[in-house]
Amino acid sequence: MSEKKYVYTFGGKTAEGKADMKNLLGGKGANLAEMCLLGLPVPAGLTITTECCTDYYANNCKLPTGLMDEVWAGISVVEKNMGLKYDDPENCLLLSCRSGARSSMPGMMDTVLNIGLSSKTLPGLIKKSNNERFVYDSYRRLIMMYADVVMEKAEGREPAEGVGIRKLLDEKLDNYKKEKGYKSDTDLTTNDLKYLSDEFKKEIKKQIGQEFPDDAKKQLEGGIMAVFKSWNGKKAISYRRIEGIPDEWGTAVNVQAMVFGNMGDSSATGVAFTRNPANGANEFYGEWLVNAQGEDVVAGIRTPSPLNNDTKNEQNKHLVSMEDSLPATYKELCEIRDILEKAYRDMLDIEFTIQDKKLYMLQCRVGKRTGAAALQIAMDMLKEGLISEKEAILRINPSQLEELLFPILDSKDEAKQTVIAKGLPAGPGGAVGVIALSCEEAMRLSKEKIVSILVREETNPEDVEGMRAAAGILTARGGMTSHAALVARGWGKCCIVGCEAIHINMDKKTINIAGKEYKEGDVLSLNGTKGFVYAGKVKMIDATENPVLKGFMEIVEKYRTMGVRTNADTPKDAQNAINFGAEGIGLFRIEHMFYGENSEAPLAVLRKMILAADTAERKKYLNELHPYIKQAVKGTMKVMDGKPVTFRLIDPPLHEFVPQTEKGQKELAAELKISFEEIKRRIDALHEVNPMMGLRGVRLGVVYPEISETQFDALFEATLELKKEGCNPILEIMVPLTISVTELKHQKEIADRVQAEVEKRNGMKLEYLYGTMIEIPRATIVAKQIAEVADFFSFGTNDLTQMTFGFSRDDVNVIISEYKDKKIIPADPFQTLDTVGVGGLVGVGINFGRETKPDLKVGVCGEHGGDPASVEFFYTVGMTYVSCSPFRVPIARLAAAQAAIKYEK
Amino acid sequence: MSEKKYVYTFGGKTAEGKADMKNLLGGKGANLAEMCLLGLPVPAGLTITTECCTDYYANNCKLPTGLMDEVWAGISVVEKNMGLKYDDPENCLLLSCRSGARSSMPGMMDTVLNIGLSSKTLPGLIKKSNNERFVYDSYRRLIMMYADVVMEKAEGREPAEGVGIRKLLDEKLDNYKKEKGYKSDTDLTTNDLKYLSDEFKKEIKKQIGQEFPDDAKKQLEGGIMAVFKSWNGKKAISYRRIEGIPDEWGTAVNVQAMVFGNMGDSSATGVAFTRNPANGANEFYGEWLVNAQGEDVVAGIRTPSPLNNDTKNEQNKHLVSMEDSLPATYKELCEIRDILEKAYRDMLDIEFTIQDKKLYMLQCRVGKRTGAAALQIAMDMLKEGLISEKEAILRINPSQLEELLFPILDSKDEAKQTVIAKGLPAGPGGAVGVIALSCEEAMRLSKEKIVSILVREETNPEDVEGMRAAAGILTARGGMTSHAALVARGWGKCCIVGCEAIHINMDKKTINIAGKEYKEGDVLSLNGTKGFVYAGKVKMIDATENPVLKGFMEIVEKYRTMGVRTNADTPKDAQNAINFGAEGIGLFRIEHMFYGENSEAPLAVLRKMILAADTAERKKYLNELHPYIKQAVKGTMKVMDGKPVTFRLIDPPLHEFVPQTEKGQKELAAELKISFEEIKRRIDALHEVNPMMGLRGVRLGVVYPEISETQFDALFEATLELKKEGCNPILEIMVPLTISVTELKHQKEIADRVQAEVEKRNGMKLEYLYGTMIEIPRATIVAKQIAEVADFFSFGTNDLTQMTFGFSRDDVNVIISEYKDKKIIPADPFQTLDTVGVGGLVGVGINFGRETKPDLKVGVCGEHGGDPASVEFFYTVGMTYVSCSPFRVPIARLAAAQAAIKYEK
Repeated sequence: MSEKKYVYTFGGKTAEGKADMKNLLGGKGANLAEMCLLGLPVPAGLTITTECCTDYYANNCKLPTGLMDEVWAGISVVEKNMGLKYDDPENCLLLSCRSGARSSMPGMMDTVLNIGLSSKTLPGLIKKSNNERFVYDSYRRLIMMYADVVMEKAEGREPAEGVGIRKLLDEKLDNYKKEKGYKSDTDLTTNDLKYLSDEFKKEIKKQIGQEFPDDAKKQLEGGIMAVFKSWNGKKAISYRRIEGIPDEWGTAVNVQAMVFGNMGDSSATGVAFTRNPANGANEFYGEWLVNAQGEDVVAGIRTPSPLNNDTKNEQNKHLVSMEDSLPATYKELCEIRDILEKAYRDMLDIEFTIQDKKLYMLQCRVGKRTGAAALQIAMDMLKEGLISEKEAILRINPSQLEELLFPILDSKDEAKQTVIAKGLPAGPGGAVGVIALSCEEAMRLSKEKIVSILVREETNPEDVEGMRAAAGILTARGGMTSHAALVARGWGKCCIVGCEAIHINMDKKTINIAGKEYKEGDVLSLNGTKGFVYAGKVKMIDATENPVLKGFMEIVEKYRTMGVRTNADTPKDAQNAINFGAEGIGLFRIEHMFYGENSEAPLAVLRKMILAADTAERKKYLNELHPYIKQAVKGTMKVMDGKPVTFRLIDPPLHEFVPQTEKGQKELAAELKISFEEIKRRIDALHEVNPMMGLRGVRLGVVYPEISETQFDALFEATLELKKEGCNPILEIMVPLTISVTELKHQKEIADRVQAEVEKRNGMKLEYLYGTMIEIPRATIVAKQIAEVADFFSFGTNDLTQMTFGFSRDDVNVIISEYKDKKIIPADPFQTLDTVGVGGLVGVGINFGRETKPDLKVGVCGEHGGDPASVEFFYTVGMTYVSCSPFRVPIARLAAAQAAIKYEK
Repeated sequence: MSEKKYVYTFGGKTAEGKADMKNLLGGKGANLAEMCLLGLPVPAGLTITTECCTDYYANNCKLPTGLMDEVWAGISVVEKNMGLKYDDPENCLLLSCRSGARSSMPGMMDTVLNIGLSSKTLPGLIKKSNNERFVYDSYRRLIMMYADVVMEKAEGREPAEGVGIRKLLDEKLDNYKKEKGYKSDTDLTTNDLKYLSDEFKKEIKKQIGQEFPDDAKKQLEGGIMAVFKSWNGKKAISYRRIEGIPDEWGTAVNVQAMVFGNMGDSSATGVAFTRNPANGANEFYGEWLVNAQGEDVVAGIRTPSPLNNDTKNEQNKHLVSMEDSLPATYKELCEIRDILEKAYRDMLDIEFTIQDKKLYMLQCRVGKRTGAAALQIAMDMLKEGLISEKEAILRINPSQLEELLFPILDSKDEAKQTVIAKGLPAGPGGAVGVIALSCEEAMRLSKEKIVSILVREETNPEDVEGMRAAAGILTARGGMTSHAALVARGWGKCCIVGCEAIHINMDKKTINIAGKEYKEGDVLSLNGTKGFVYAGKVKMIDATENPVLKGFMEIVEKYRTMGVRTNADTPKDAQNAINFGAEGIGLFRIEHMFYGENSEAPLAVLRKMILAADTAERKKYLNELHPYIKQAVKGTMKVMDGKPVTFRLIDPPLHEFVPQTEKGQKELAAELKISFEEIKRRIDALHEVNPMMGLRGVRLGVVYPEISETQFDALFEATLELKKEGCNPILEIMVPLTISVTELKHQKEIADRVQAEVEKRNGMKLEYLYGTMIEIPRATIVAKQIAEVADFFSFGTNDLTQMTFGFSRDDVNVIISEYKDKKIIPADPFQTLDTVGVGGLVGVGINFGRETKPDLKVGVCGEHGGDPASVEFFYTVGMTYVSCSPFRVPIARLAAAQAAIKYEK
């Protein structure tokens, strides 16, 4: 027998667990225990630990020896607490069996309710409840769930003919309802339910070849095992991949006394948020359904009623609120809300059931929320004195900020259009895209870079990938706590649910709204903040200044110590970045000026330069490029007045710039007055087998010093001209792809010569910093020498990741996704820095560099500079600043402040 | 004034320097000092240090202040010693001014002789020597050299109309001789020389615009400066690049009293080796010329006479030896030979001059020799007790061993052919190639991978690159110590010099031998060991077993501690490697079996496997490949019976195997029964932008586990079959391109499963080592984790160099050569390991790996495993073994033994 304690009981006002035992008991179990300790009404139960799940998998999918003994011992505590007895013919306790991982995975794992109903216990329960219909309704639910979750999925059965048992039973139910002319489940009579229960059991025997177990003990053991099993179900694994939840964590199992929201009109079930999860307003926000079990609310099958009158909306204003219908219970619930918020100091998501007017708390957890809500709640709670500034900062997931910066529909353009349908505003911002009626279609369009709106009756956990692929989500059914709403809000994705005006015809692949037909490929626009749907394209604009965000960022700035710059190559991007709080430009890619607006003419000259026959010809074209480069440089430096701008010398292989089409090549040949064969020959001569590791970066400047010379000259001239104009340009130049200090010296000699000439020409002195990218593994190893010449380092973690892994970014997408699936790498190293390998080399480079210059300025300008987890790592290795795209600047600022707080000494 | 001592005098039996001061005094200066200390007759002189050269360059090409004062002080010591006075009208001392770097750079820098001759000193010297012709001959030589070396080259003048002054003066001399009907310089009379001296001076004034200086002091200063300047002459730089001599070393300048070999028939000049430099025989081997200055011998203009009768050969047997002509002086020279060999304990190359029967030593240095000679001399001196075993081992440059292993002409085939010409056997081995009459042509052919024989009148230092490019060298003129002979011998290159039967017609681009014409492109065969030339192709064979080498390698084995394996993929290569002393195979590339002999059928199956539509189809073709792989593996393992064989799983990107031509693709489409479009599509799908960093190595095995599975199965089956046949196969499998221990685990799971199946199938247990290549930078960083699974590491330094530098080996040849020229990198990192960067990571990988497994076996299987400098590095970082191509195994063994001796504690 195991020496571990696998089972923790809770109930009454006591519990063996508590809130901070999430790792062992899972979120649900820990919070159930905590609610008991807070004196709240919780049906008694027990939690089987996540450790047990791990042992279950280590033990070849067998429950650990002795576990069930512990469970039965726990059940007897529950029995005492509830005054009921499991498998007792007269006073029978029914149980639920639910998953509960460390981190919430809504709807991703399996649940079995009403466990314990059997021919032995049914009569007693009917007698005791005096509600035969309720008992048989519960029984048919148990049969349906058990057959699906335990008998089919957990046993790993392939459904016969590809159709799962649950679907077959659902069809049976629907057909029966049609036959009888019933509209709703509530129309089913006791006899109907009895009949259906028998039919279901026959169908199960037929399909699965086994009897539905009429043994309460066997039912419970099966339920526990099925929950463990569902940890490795396909949708759970897929969700964990997206959310980055480790497979090793495992789930706990919560076995809890059943209470019934479906016992008649004085019974109900509901879910609520202690504050509004969409916008953060300090209002009690929730939904409830009379005579229903919890799954009915979450599944979005019936549109639920509002919790109170203040939060009624267009869609549910005709329904009766709990506040009106059950005022005493509502008052009790409001008191519980206060107790929970004070205890948890955060916004919570709660589930409750009312059994014959008695309130039971079934779940509480920190509630998912949009970025806007997270921000509002953090700032409110700070004002309310519930949390400190540092806590407020740590409350916002930096990537959630992104949605606050997301584009929204332009209200002016929106005002001119007609709303074709309204739904619940489940996810923020706006989205414009073509209709996709299936997840497959949304994913297909995404691969083709076509923006789509996923339109569905309702969504379910199988749909997460398609939801991710779409720009916006629109569902016909479901409430604010339906699957689609929860998931979209978690991602900050534009989403409208419960839009009942929509009728989907999957056969014709169309949707019908008020008699008008829209087909796949037609464009829709969504306002996810209001819940409005438009036909056709509505203009989109950037999110405007948000005062709450401004106030928050002011607090962030108090704690941030690491600098944040931006990667920008145009005055417009530079201005955007300044608006977002950038303190300078960390990466201006000179070559980008040849691909922007109005750059056709200079690109043509650049091409001639690249294909020049000799140095003299190359210099001629470089001279033609000089004024253009100077102007482009001036434009951005002017915007950045007084802030440093780091220019990177031309980096990519030259053949990236030459025309690829025969037409373009012929035109260029004509301009250069050479034959087509000759231009082909010259272009072929530029071909490389592995261009990523060929003639690019500083190598260009070593092989063709005149290319560097022109860039230095243009940069120096632009700087002095701005000075003459009274500006304060702060110039930094960096050399890309350095492998050795000798390269830096070689280029510095050119720069020094040009500097002397430019200074003489202008009669002015010039100051600038001369630095280097560190993006080749060798550069990190020889950083000590490099720092002798470089005034600063800027880590190019994109290339460094390529070389450190031997991963060509252009080629390894398939490999990376296979590697993630097969758990060979934990994440895409191009998205989140590989702190062990690439990060190890970054650390080596910084340490060596600072051996030579203790105050060496080091930054990072790869895309990792805007990734929160990477920013935290960069803070820990002593980076002076990170640089990222303008849009991610606030994210980096927040991540930097959080790192400073987390690693405070 | 500088505080450094720049000038070291020598003369009489004393000297300020000595032999071990080479770094400061250069080789020549240090050895001149040493010869004085040994009591040998050396004309007095002084050496200006290499430090002075460095200061000269640091000082913007100005002689350091105070240097000339030191020189004049030194000259007065020389004057006392020689009993002469510089610039004295009556008793005038003349001086030579010669370069002398740390490492010999024969002919690469400039020399000025007869300095001090002017209108002031000419009459007195005529009077004193009573030999007006000699004086004017010396004078015209001074003018010619000075104009060229000091007035033109050192001043950096561009020759007018592209023709250098030396050439113009030489033409003047030749034309004058033709006019007069003279055959040789010795036919020139005193008046001719007087006349020519005047003409030369006029031409100099005309061409250069300055007078030839008639001032002895100015002449000396100019001479010194010119020698310093020639350190950075084009040919010197080019030579240093090839020989790997650092630019920072600088040259010393030796200013020495002139003695004259051109004072008549009792004067002479000569060069000699204390032993035969071609084969190492213990015989005094040299050449001399009566009435000549040293440059006449080295330049190869006149065919010199043999030193003694024993060493006469076909070419010079008709000439009088010094032994017969000047027996007393010869005897003195023989005594000097003994003294020097005892003092230096090595074979020496000496230069001497006889002025009116008095012998003067002008130079001694350790002599260059062929690999064969080096080996013979080392083994002889070991026997003679001159040197120890360790010294003998250190005496052989490992890369010289290569030439002993070089192919030679097949003597049987040779016997059937007619020798069309004979010359001096200046460089060993055989060569067959097409005639190239210019260095440019030889280099062009080399780029096109066409093997050439460079045929020239004589070679000069400008020709080194062409000589390197050719497989063999054949010259019409010159002796065993001519430029061509010295250089070729240094490189161990097949070379025949002084082949006077050859007449070259550069206009017609032909050569004429005994009336028969051969043109560029015709094939010649050379036997460099005998000096025989054949028309057409003679069969070549590998060098056969050499007993001296065997004896030497036996000693080597006493000291070697690091293992040496080979990279081999066929039974034939494996057998070769065993013959060369390989202790196992360090790299068997499984994919190579698809490109060997008789591999067409399996290659076709491989292609089908690669282009399979799905896993099932892929498995089908893998099953077809299995028996072929198994057979190939067995073949090599059988040869290696009892020695470990390391198999690397298939490494290259799959598209390397698919047909590139439309024809091949169409054939394959037909075989696969798919359309041409479909096969194009599948082939295009394999295309990668940077294949070097794409889907290859272990990534193939992760994405397509069945590919690894088949390889494991074939390897395991082959091993057990051999065991059943009574062999002792030692199997090692390594996974390429690893970036993480998770990859190794993934593949190991497959291997374990296959192993269990194979063991069951055969009813036998299998043992093998499971290891990994370390060739991606990340692998070195995470080596600690990798070693938890890997039984051994094998460093793939080729790929590691690619990734560490970001150098695509296929693309960066141009960059590497530019980088070497511009001194950005010291050597091609693919040839000699970059010990700082790549080596740094190798060290990291070994240390981390051994943190986990202190006895971890680590090897290297990149091409660096056969590069002596790299082998030394690998020894210092604790490598267990190196693995290299079969041919380089003896080289690696020697390099390993040398490292063990050098780093002996």
